[in-house]
Amino acid sequence: MTTLIDKLQWRYATKKMNPALPLPQDKLDRILEAVRLTATSSGLQPYEVLIVQDPALRQQIRENAWNQAQVTDASHLLVFAAWDNYTAERINQMFDLTNDVRGFKNDGWEAYRQQLLATYPQRSAEENFQHAARQAYIGLGTALIAAAEEQVDATPMEGFTPAKVDEILNLKARGLRSVLLLPLGYRQADGDWLVNLKKVRRPTEQFVSTI
Amino acid sequence: MTTLIDKLQWRYATKKMNPALPLPQDKLDRILEAVRLTATSSGLQPYEVLIVQDPALRQQIRENAWNQAQVTDASHLLVFAAWDNYTAERINQMFDLTNDVRGFKNDGWEAYRQQLLATYPQRSAEENFQHAARQAYIGLGTALIAAAEEQVDATPMEGFTPAKVDEILNLKARGLRSVLLLPLGYRQADGDWLVNLKKVRRPTEQFVSTI
Repeated sequence: MTTLIDKLQWRYATKKMNPALPLPQDKLDRILEAVRLTATSSGLQPYEVLIVQDPALRQQIRENAWNQAQVTDASHLLVFAAWDNYTAERINQMFDLTNDVRGFKNDGWEAYRQQLLATYPQRSAEENFQHAARQAYIGLGTALIAAAEEQVDATPMEGFTPAKVDEILNLKARGLRSVLLLPLGYRQADGDWLVNLKKVRRPTEQFVSTI
Repeated sequence: MTTLIDKLQWRYATKKMNPALPLPQDKLDRILEAVRLTATSSGLQPYEVLIVQDPALRQQIRENAWNQAQVTDASHLLVFAAWDNYTAERINQMFDLTNDVRGFKNDGWEAYRQQLLATYPQRSAEENFQHAARQAYIGLGTALIAAAEEQVDATPMEGFTPAKVDEILNLKARGLRSVLLLPLGYRQADGDWLVNLKKVRRPTEQFVSTI
């Protein structure tokens, strides 16, 4: 399994995780590193990844996620939580970090900072959150590929009540709102109705067109 | 460059594309195939990818994309355009295709179809579009990795006026709304201010936490 297309063919939204098989730390670390390195709008990385390992919290989340068993059965549960707003402080932190790492100030980059400062904090918190949430989906897409590269199973999930998960994890105090869940671990094939079914996608001619 | 992390380190949002270097068709095909295969919510693939090659259309898009030169200089311009709404017809098409490919009807899958039919078409078109647009970001994240695997440069872009691009490409008639632009091609390093600058990301301890 060497190409990206092989990895995408291999992966599927695992329906039954084996609760007895832990994910090795080095595999988890590489998956998280891929998410950290992937693209975000203006490089702001406007989300965080929470790893929820407390069994009681996992159970509470499951109760607010259509009782999907992967939430508690999987080796690890990732929660992608986006910034609830773009503030001047958050924007400045990222531009300052960039200057620190690169060791100099770039005039174009500073002009771009001012442009964001003049735009983002003036928009509604909801509009900014929606924009930040979209970036988390780039992270999710990256995590799915990273997991497949490690031959780790994953179940991307939107089917949960974000406001409840925010409460359970006390996200409001951190200026975050939950967007996506991603259980990671190893499939239990004998309880997984999807594992042997064909992946179905629209044919290319219905998905791609040239103008 | 064999691991995903290597590929993510290699890629960057290319600021200057070489207009003289075309992208080979087989590389483009593999990038598009990766996007086609990647995950979407409920497998609905609620977006399309348009390849805009007409120079006049590219120029018009550039004029509505902060005059970013990659829009016209890049070998290829991809436009990710999401469904403007989830309709019963669109949902049924995907479930019917799934049954056709798999060769049987699955009771659980049919119950899930009914659940979506009872939920999505009743929501506002705007709520549905926003949900579909998020899926396009998974596709974008996948395309960036696919391009890096092919050593192809790419510039993910949100900086354009979607309503104008929708008009230019006549997307409304197709039930689509533009979400993302992705010029693909080869960098022109001597005109690219970003090419030699370090990639900057928050340290892991500010991006990942365990509960």
